[in-house]
Amino acid sequence: MTKNVAQLMGDLESIGRDPLRGGYSRPGFGTHELTLLEWFVAEAESRGLDIERDRNGITWAWWDLPETATGSAADSGDKPNRAHAIATGSHLDSVPGGGAFDGPLGVASALASLDQLQEQERNGTLRRTRPLVIAVFPEEEGSRFGVACLGSRLITGAISPQRALALTDRDGSSFADAARAVGLNPEHMGADPARLSGLDAFLELHVEQGKFLGKDPLGPAVAVASSILGHGRWRFSFAGQGNHAGTTLMADRHDPMIAAAAFVVAVRDEVSAESGARGTVGRLEPIPGGTNVVASRVDVWLDVRHPDDVVTAGLVERLHHRATALADAEGCTVTMSEESMTGTVNFDGGLARGLLNSVERVAPGTQLLPSGAGHDAGILASVIPTGMIFTRNPTGISHAPEEYVEDADAQHGVDALTLALADLLTEELQN
Amino acid sequence: MTKNVAQLMGDLESIGRDPLRGGYSRPGFGTHELTLLEWFVAEAESRGLDIERDRNGITWAWWDLPETATGSAADSGDKPNRAHAIATGSHLDSVPGGGAFDGPLGVASALASLDQLQEQERNGTLRRTRPLVIAVFPEEEGSRFGVACLGSRLITGAISPQRALALTDRDGSSFADAARAVGLNPEHMGADPARLSGLDAFLELHVEQGKFLGKDPLGPAVAVASSILGHGRWRFSFAGQGNHAGTTLMADRHDPMIAAAAFVVAVRDEVSAESGARGTVGRLEPIPGGTNVVASRVDVWLDVRHPDDVVTAGLVERLHHRATALADAEGCTVTMSEESMTGTVNFDGGLARGLLNSVERVAPGTQLLPSGAGHDAGILASVIPTGMIFTRNPTGISHAPEEYVEDADAQHGVDALTLALADLLTEELQN
Repeated sequence: MTKNVAQLMGDLESIGRDPLRGGYSRPGFGTHELTLLEWFVAEAESRGLDIERDRNGITWAWWDLPETATGSAADSGDKPNRAHAIATGSHLDSVPGGGAFDGPLGVASALASLDQLQEQERNGTLRRTRPLVIAVFPEEEGSRFGVACLGSRLITGAISPQRALALTDRDGSSFADAARAVGLNPEHMGADPARLSGLDAFLELHVEQGKFLGKDPLGPAVAVASSILGHGRWRFSFAGQGNHAGTTLMADRHDPMIAAAAFVVAVRDEVSAESGARGTVGRLEPIPGGTNVVASRVDVWLDVRHPDDVVTAGLVERLHHRATALADAEGCTVTMSEESMTGTVNFDGGLARGLLNSVERVAPGTQLLPSGAGHDAGILASVIPTGMIFTRNPTGISHAPEEYVEDADAQHGVDALTLALADLLTEELQN
Repeated sequence: MTKNVAQLMGDLESIGRDPLRGGYSRPGFGTHELTLLEWFVAEAESRGLDIERDRNGITWAWWDLPETATGSAADSGDKPNRAHAIATGSHLDSVPGGGAFDGPLGVASALASLDQLQEQERNGTLRRTRPLVIAVFPEEEGSRFGVACLGSRLITGAISPQRALALTDRDGSSFADAARAVGLNPEHMGADPARLSGLDAFLELHVEQGKFLGKDPLGPAVAVASSILGHGRWRFSFAGQGNHAGTTLMADRHDPMIAAAAFVVAVRDEVSAESGARGTVGRLEPIPGGTNVVASRVDVWLDVRHPDDVVTAGLVERLHHRATALADAEGCTVTMSEESMTGTVNFDGGLARGLLNSVERVAPGTQLLPSGAGHDAGILASVIPTGMIFTRNPTGISHAPEEYVEDADAQHGVDALTLALADLLTEELQN
């Protein structure tokens, strides 16, 4: 009664569709993310896993060592010994109008790999020294509360619980309220080094979000991550004088929409001139936002990425200067605030080499690939040896309905993940 | 137990406040507009008026002729004769984050004038030949369904009921659904010439929305409208390729946000170069609107106004060309659709002269003033002799929380309205 990865993904295809934007809208701590999580818990429990939800809202599904397992890791009596665990998993939330695969593919692939590993253990071809745990992280996209990888930032201490709990969504609900609504206690949130110290490695499979694997349909369907591009988010609030669109002469206006629009164009120009940089304004909100109203304020969210964090900082500073000059020219003001900044992450070299060796057996010619997208793996990499496997997306498009994975490629991804996990799960314990 | 206009406005000050935008958000057919309408009905009934809601959602409160009135208008037996009526009134909805006075001041002033007129009738100093009716028009701002003056457009036939009923709000609800929700029958909506033919004049008092009266604090607090500037709304949908903000190289993008932003700047430049024109982008919506997502579509609403409709048409055509070129440059496309267009309205000259004569008695030096803002009066002017009185707004700001009227100026407005209405209500019937 096991399902392959295509069938598992098929279970999810009706959940959280967005008729307005196309694709899926599954915001963190919202109905659809919770429905997907219920599905995950049911699938994990049907495979005999033991479910824990930790105090930061991360779900952990444990495949403990069999009672017959040898070695120190299984010597703990009634309570399973969960030290030296190998973790895999991803997230179930999406950006607004996102694709089906960003996040859920990693969770579904983990379940499908588990089926293969459980079969191997029953056959006696897998002799684990370590437990496996599948982790599902909440609000990875940051599309609801503005800070991406919120769960992994909380557990690692990369964000203080005070700051996280005060974040608000577009409706003005705080993260503290949203956490309470799903039964979490805001007072207990924050860094959890004890839990992390029990993990020897974290491995995240993810749909590829660029054009690397799609270029060669006959090449390997998977790649191993080398790094995650440094990236941050800044909010620019342009403020002017709200007024009537009909009675206010052009010369009398202090219209923040003009400054904000000129800034959007300036972002593209400045960023394009900086080799290797990416800069995007994908969210812009005029206030009050009426057709016959000169706006009083326009909020602009800027996403900037570059391999060199010093270059990113310089670029953002230049953009801040540009914004100020553009606001001045309209008799408006602008304030900039940093919502998040994560430096470039180079994944653990030893683990990446091991992953390449494992994955080579199912996908000859597999290469290392830098990721332009952020991931929970990038946050966890600061405290645990962490690696990533990417599965081919022939469209090269992500965060959009066109994101796609062929069933056969998804299966290649699962096979690669299984080989990598099997190698990690059977490694000799070091202590 | 009558209230003056400041007290009437005070009744409304807590209804529909917008803590996010400041000011008031009272969208058409929404809770707050309905609450205000209930207030109006209660105030009108307490003054003995008879309430009708017509099939287009316009509320009419009738002050019929007294039974002792002489002349043909009162000779109809049980049912009051409502021919040759004089109408006054305004609207209760607001733009998002709008001021307190735009709309409600006209309704409150009508009630306050009614108090004065009823007192005069009791004293025997007012001998009416005509009934008075106070009208409240729904969705004047068009901030919910996109088309301003929706009620007056429906009753005059300026919009077809088919087109109106298919309009949708930001949540995707249709006007047909919203109308049904307040008990209207969409099948009965549309032009109502019989009702309009019973009106001999419509007079709307409105807060001034420009800087004319505010310039001279010692000058008259009221003015009479000469014209309403022609104005229209167009939606430009820029479409590109939605994608991931981190993985998509700058050179690979087809980002409609860049084209839309460049268009916003182009609108300002083109419109500023056209003497007497006003052009505004106050509403802009990226889809899907995620910080880490290159947008797939950006919708931009354009408001353009000019005294000469031919100039407006030429300007919009040039802007359409600019939009197309800007979209092309990004590998995007753009489609333009007209949401509404109302030509410049010159109010009935005879009525305007009569209004000036009436108003002069309370506000010496009263002048004629063109209106940059649209009003239901502008729509009704095509079928009924129509006029407007403006009350001073010292800030010169409208469609924003700063919109303001001094109590004393509001009282001047009421006194002017009372004089104008008394003159109209006592005119000899022509037939």
